[in-house]
Amino acid sequence: MARTASLSGFPEWLPQERLVELHVLDTLRRTFELHGFASIETRAVETVGQLLRKGEIDKEVYGLSRLADEDDSASRADANSLALHFDLTVPFARYVVENAGHLAFPFRRYQIQKVWRGERPQEGRAREFTQADIDVVGDGELPFRYDVELALVIAEALSALPIPEFRLRVNNRKLAEGFYRGIGLTDTAGVLRSIDKLEKVGPSRVAELLQEELGATPEQAKAALELASIRTEDTSFVARVRALGVQDELLEEGLGELEQVIAAASAAAPGKVVADLSIARGLDYYTGTVYETVLVGHEQLGSICSGGRYDALATKGSRKFPGVGLSIGVTRLVSRILSQELATASRSVPTAVLVTLTDDDSWTAAQGVAAQLRSRGIPVEVAAKAEKFGKQIKYADRRGIPFVWFTHADGRHEVKDIRSGEQVEADPASWTPPAADVTPQIIAAQQA
Amino acid sequence: MARTASLSGFPEWLPQERLVELHVLDTLRRTFELHGFASIETRAVETVGQLLRKGEIDKEVYGLSRLADEDDSASRADANSLALHFDLTVPFARYVVENAGHLAFPFRRYQIQKVWRGERPQEGRAREFTQADIDVVGDGELPFRYDVELALVIAEALSALPIPEFRLRVNNRKLAEGFYRGIGLTDTAGVLRSIDKLEKVGPSRVAELLQEELGATPEQAKAALELASIRTEDTSFVARVRALGVQDELLEEGLGELEQVIAAASAAAPGKVVADLSIARGLDYYTGTVYETVLVGHEQLGSICSGGRYDALATKGSRKFPGVGLSIGVTRLVSRILSQELATASRSVPTAVLVTLTDDDSWTAAQGVAAQLRSRGIPVEVAAKAEKFGKQIKYADRRGIPFVWFTHADGRHEVKDIRSGEQVEADPASWTPPAADVTPQIIAAQQA
Repeated sequence: MARTASLSGFPEWLPQERLVELHVLDTLRRTFELHGFASIETRAVETVGQLLRKGEIDKEVYGLSRLADEDDSASRADANSLALHFDLTVPFARYVVENAGHLAFPFRRYQIQKVWRGERPQEGRAREFTQADIDVVGDGELPFRYDVELALVIAEALSALPIPEFRLRVNNRKLAEGFYRGIGLTDTAGVLRSIDKLEKVGPSRVAELLQEELGATPEQAKAALELASIRTEDTSFVARVRALGVQDELLEEGLGELEQVIAAASAAAPGKVVADLSIARGLDYYTGTVYETVLVGHEQLGSICSGGRYDALATKGSRKFPGVGLSIGVTRLVSRILSQELATASRSVPTAVLVTLTDDDSWTAAQGVAAQLRSRGIPVEVAAKAEKFGKQIKYADRRGIPFVWFTHADGRHEVKDIRSGEQVEADPASWTPPAADVTPQIIAAQQA
Repeated sequence: MARTASLSGFPEWLPQERLVELHVLDTLRRTFELHGFASIETRAVETVGQLLRKGEIDKEVYGLSRLADEDDSASRADANSLALHFDLTVPFARYVVENAGHLAFPFRRYQIQKVWRGERPQEGRAREFTQADIDVVGDGELPFRYDVELALVIAEALSALPIPEFRLRVNNRKLAEGFYRGIGLTDTAGVLRSIDKLEKVGPSRVAELLQEELGATPEQAKAALELASIRTEDTSFVARVRALGVQDELLEEGLGELEQVIAAASAAAPGKVVADLSIARGLDYYTGTVYETVLVGHEQLGSICSGGRYDALATKGSRKFPGVGLSIGVTRLVSRILSQELATASRSVPTAVLVTLTDDDSWTAAQGVAAQLRSRGIPVEVAAKAEKFGKQIKYADRRGIPFVWFTHADGRHEVKDIRSGEQVEADPASWTPPAADVTPQIIAAQQA
């Protein structure tokens, strides 16, 4: 896997690598559908006005213009001009508003698509990448229980992938905001921005930032850092927060919500979903639960799945659509699986059997044999030329096809496993390869 | 289906419509894989230089530029600047050249992706649409037999879709070019361009064009039109061409090739693959077989699947990669299926069963029931709130979920089919809905 993308930031996979990606996508789709999420896709483009609604992201956006359009440089600044979407949340919010009359709420959807960001490419950060999102969105209100459910669905989906152990870290904005308010820090966004730098710059630097930039006292900075240091696999975080002695109504609400998530998740997926009170998701406008996920041993890769609760994912006049959702970084995961060979495909072609030709006139009969095998779900190719059998076998070998089929002049059929060399009589109406050979299998490496 | 796209030329589907599209995509994927085609995807962007290599298409291309990039209008004219791909053939050719050392030839791939063209939107012509391509590409040479095979694969793939009868019309450039040369018309491209207008302007206008623009004699124009009028479901076109009395070596080669395709196809898929000597595919640079497909009764929709043989799909120095392939216009097909209700989904959600709550504490137990059902492939949702049963049933009904599940205080389970009202005792470890209710089914309308 020493290949590099021919265009930096735009990865492309070889067929054998693509099979690993397809396996990841199929597994996610299956899990999401089993949990009642419906598939949608949105167009790749939005108006610039729609994309910039939440501000602060214009640097990353690819604008579109027709090459033949002379009078174009002017229109690019226009809010009605087009640009590629940079996530699936903004397009989904628009879709919900536009189609509200046709959707049954709470609306559960999954959406697996490419997104584009004009960022400087680096490990784990591409310019074109695939995201897999699930969201539940309500009309007017959305029970908190969905925040719990989504953590369980994502834990189940990630557990089914050929990836190392993960930790889905959960926090709650109300908890954090209530706590900061309780200790007298009212610039919640400012505090969250500083706390967000914890992993990068360390606690003493964050304490300085809180004092320098937000005018916090040393005691306030210390309390904020104590809160952020709390990580538990069960609901014991509640007692540890209470032990810090801060009183606030919003804090209590947030504690109660996070307790529900962790209680249910620690029962269903012990150790996989943890309370982590340092999670801030600084730049995102969540209003309650926030999620972030790391691969154990691959923390420097960054979060592979993030999300949270919005009070209003979208609004239509006075009508509010609250939502909760998570987004899996599929390309980031697949890149890591491939570069570290965490999983590989058993072969690069779908084909299980090559039907050989005895002579050029046998092609039509060979197609008949192939059709019989395919009717039982076995992928089959027919040789294009009646070369010597040795050459036809070599062709199969070179393409990684495990079986070759021979039809003899007397009407007998034989099939040869070219790995073992074993050759047996076979009936095209009933022969089937071993289950593991029918389609390419994805084989996960043994975890250390 | 009275909705219109909120952005002209960029269609988006409702969840129930998306199920029809997914069915089409899954069916194509399955057919392609059964025939040994491997999946690949290429990036959405190419350099402008790459896209314009074959000329004549710059009008339709969407260029990309980072919104934050001030010095951009200059770079857009640059061959190294980026643009969205407008088909999957140009990117595939680049992919083959870049990865030739990692691919086993003949390389068989399918590729299902969105493409973009900045054309004026109209029925059957969108600005963003999905194509499903299959190609076989050789290293140096590619046996003609693949031209035959691809017609059979496509006929099988289209036959599996919920669409009206189709005709895959096949012609051969060598046949046409040889014939024109044989009657003294040497500007093959010019003649093909005129012949391409047959359906639009009719034969007498085409005869005029041939004479006015290409200097053909009335006899030459008549002969060219006679050739173009030949359409047969079997190989009888050979005799009809010969009866026109034109002698040419290339014509003979083309006749022989087309005869092979039609002979094999009329045996495997009678009536679906026809010889049509009017097919020109004017703007594409094919060198032998050309394909085009219409839906019977929907001819004005245009071709829903086209392609052909290239002597050199790609080149790398003196190394040539000949190819043959076809591209299905998935969005064009799906738009037509939806607008004419040729097929519909049996429900809009994947969910087969809603597990109700007796009280709020029963949520975890309900998740347990749901997990048992899901382990047998049944899509399940759990109610978020312990509302009155009537309300929970109404929720299922509104979302189109056919079954609701009740767990009673004494541990008994019951499941109700809310369509029939029938309610029976059920065991979460073994109960399964009727096969037609497990996942949404795509139901094809009766063809008139």
